[in-house]
Amino acid sequence: MVSGVRLKNLQLEIQPQKVDAVLISRVANITYLTGYSGFSTEEREAFLLITPQQQLIFTDGRYSEAVKKLLPDFRLVEIGGGKKFKDLLKEETGNLKITKLGIEEDDLKVSEFKQIKKVIRFLKDFKFHQQRSLKTDAEVSLIEKACEIGDLAFKFILTKIKAGISEKELAYYLENFIRVQGFESSFKTIIAFGENSAVPHHQTGEARLKSGDFVLMDFGVRFKNYCSDMTRTVVFGRASQKQKKIYQTVKESQEKAAEFLKKKIQHPAPGVGVLAKDVDRTARQYILGQGFPSIPHSLGHGIGIEVHEHPYLSPNSQETLKEGMVFSIEPGIYIPGFGGGRIEDLYVLESNGIRQLTDSPKEFIEI
Amino acid sequence: MVSGVRLKNLQLEIQPQKVDAVLISRVANITYLTGYSGFSTEEREAFLLITPQQQLIFTDGRYSEAVKKLLPDFRLVEIGGGKKFKDLLKEETGNLKITKLGIEEDDLKVSEFKQIKKVIRFLKDFKFHQQRSLKTDAEVSLIEKACEIGDLAFKFILTKIKAGISEKELAYYLENFIRVQGFESSFKTIIAFGENSAVPHHQTGEARLKSGDFVLMDFGVRFKNYCSDMTRTVVFGRASQKQKKIYQTVKESQEKAAEFLKKKIQHPAPGVGVLAKDVDRTARQYILGQGFPSIPHSLGHGIGIEVHEHPYLSPNSQETLKEGMVFSIEPGIYIPGFGGGRIEDLYVLESNGIRQLTDSPKEFIEI
Repeated sequence: MVSGVRLKNLQLEIQPQKVDAVLISRVANITYLTGYSGFSTEEREAFLLITPQQQLIFTDGRYSEAVKKLLPDFRLVEIGGGKKFKDLLKEETGNLKITKLGIEEDDLKVSEFKQIKKVIRFLKDFKFHQQRSLKTDAEVSLIEKACEIGDLAFKFILTKIKAGISEKELAYYLENFIRVQGFESSFKTIIAFGENSAVPHHQTGEARLKSGDFVLMDFGVRFKNYCSDMTRTVVFGRASQKQKKIYQTVKESQEKAAEFLKKKIQHPAPGVGVLAKDVDRTARQYILGQGFPSIPHSLGHGIGIEVHEHPYLSPNSQETLKEGMVFSIEPGIYIPGFGGGRIEDLYVLESNGIRQLTDSPKEFIEI
Repeated sequence: MVSGVRLKNLQLEIQPQKVDAVLISRVANITYLTGYSGFSTEEREAFLLITPQQQLIFTDGRYSEAVKKLLPDFRLVEIGGGKKFKDLLKEETGNLKITKLGIEEDDLKVSEFKQIKKVIRFLKDFKFHQQRSLKTDAEVSLIEKACEIGDLAFKFILTKIKAGISEKELAYYLENFIRVQGFESSFKTIIAFGENSAVPHHQTGEARLKSGDFVLMDFGVRFKNYCSDMTRTVVFGRASQKQKKIYQTVKESQEKAAEFLKKKIQHPAPGVGVLAKDVDRTARQYILGQGFPSIPHSLGHGIGIEVHEHPYLSPNSQETLKEGMVFSIEPGIYIPGFGGGRIEDLYVLESNGIRQLTDSPKEFIEI
């Protein structure tokens, strides 16, 4: 059971955002507010309707028994048996005299919006990610535990890297290790051999490992709804000078970004704080300065209930990094037709510095 | 590589729907049209822009190398490096003189809609599920193969059911079996013991198996982007009369629905066809008639690239069932505090009848 503090904090945001209530649709936010993680992210299965004093959950008969038992603080409104969500929403918002409703515009579908608009004419975007991005110590501990299992998985998987193994087989060993420890993967593992490592989000496939290949491994663990995420790149057999240079540059760019961040936290520009985009630029410029192409993705992303969440460390980010935020720093260099390397670790911002949560070795590994 | 027929068929739909082009955002539709399944369903990573003559793909640097290699028929428009999707869309639709754009309202987010609306004022819902719901023989074969692996997994898992095992452990054995055969689960396996089986979408947990428990198992396999889905319910130890009655009623209601469907296909009401809701009603009424509560979910759903897709067999469905459609029939009875049973099989509608694709035994099993 999640403490009621999260819900209370949300309820305190409702009136300042000039709405009567908010309709929470994003599954990660439902999990955050209720502790229940049973709803699919592929289809709409539930909504929360939150007013400053009350909380309702709309879901259907597949979930109603679970909700009654596990979420006693939420009033269940059951969809189905001829009762559509739209009509139930009309009934409930009518009773509660809700005329201004906050919605999550970055989650709600256009077709849902149109249905809801028929019920309530005043709809307004409601941003609810600030609270979630500022992790409590308890949340950081869960992520840390997930990272710990990830580190064990990495240690284990190094023993499985051998000539002729396929990307899929290696991914299986990795995910199976996590599973056997009693955990889950937080996303589909990326394993990329040789040239395939030049595709940052390569689809793990049938390629078989041969001497001289880069082996890029990007994977994560989920523990009690909280995720880890890490990437390591090694070389199978003897590495070329170019591979060593790529790896070294990626490693240094991550160090530069972390150092920059540390310094900035201790000496933030007055009134500005630590801008996420400045951290991105630090790593990106370093890589460019070494004669490599720019990172074809963001430098990093927040992590928690979702693998990717606020804050985003990208060139266009408008976000400020704050104490309690947990995010990745994951520079990479990718050379089409040759291969690439990425190193990804998670960090938490603390009052006077940063702390790395993943803890796997980063010296260059030839295996 | 997917045959160009799917794309051609979509392109032929564009002008009749009175738009100049369509923006495809739903990941399953992107997979359907391109054969590429590497994009996440959790975040927006790509769009297709399709005109009657051309096809473009918008994605970022994490995927551009893969797209260039695997989708040579699509022109890549790369997001990133300061170029936002919105601006690129403006440029491309400007060049292509697109002023009326079809969008997928049941997939697009409100925030995305608002961005796109700034670029193109005329946006219109574009329905693109009819083609996907009518499976070709090749598609049916892929689903059939997935079903076959599911049947093997069921046979295997029966050997693992023993006193004291947990739901999670059983789910692990099942998913691991699928994985070791070289396949993937198509969704998170549901294993529910005893009382938990009264929750249709129970979250597989730590409950341990004891004598007299219902064991409900709902799982599926993915093979070359196509999914299977099946449910079986058995009793561990000796079943009570009530359990037998529940099982028998569920089984009979499935049979009634299948028989009804068979008859209707051979003798459809002229000008009406076979209504999905009538099949739902047949099973539902039978269960009610036996004194049990109504099914707290739809009777069935289409399946293909997505586990749940059109057509939907529910009380409010407006859909007509047609040759080539593949869907589940999955009645269930759920008694809070006691337990429940569900039987789910996949069927394909053929010109003169229906054919069951899953093929696991349905006689009542005490194990």
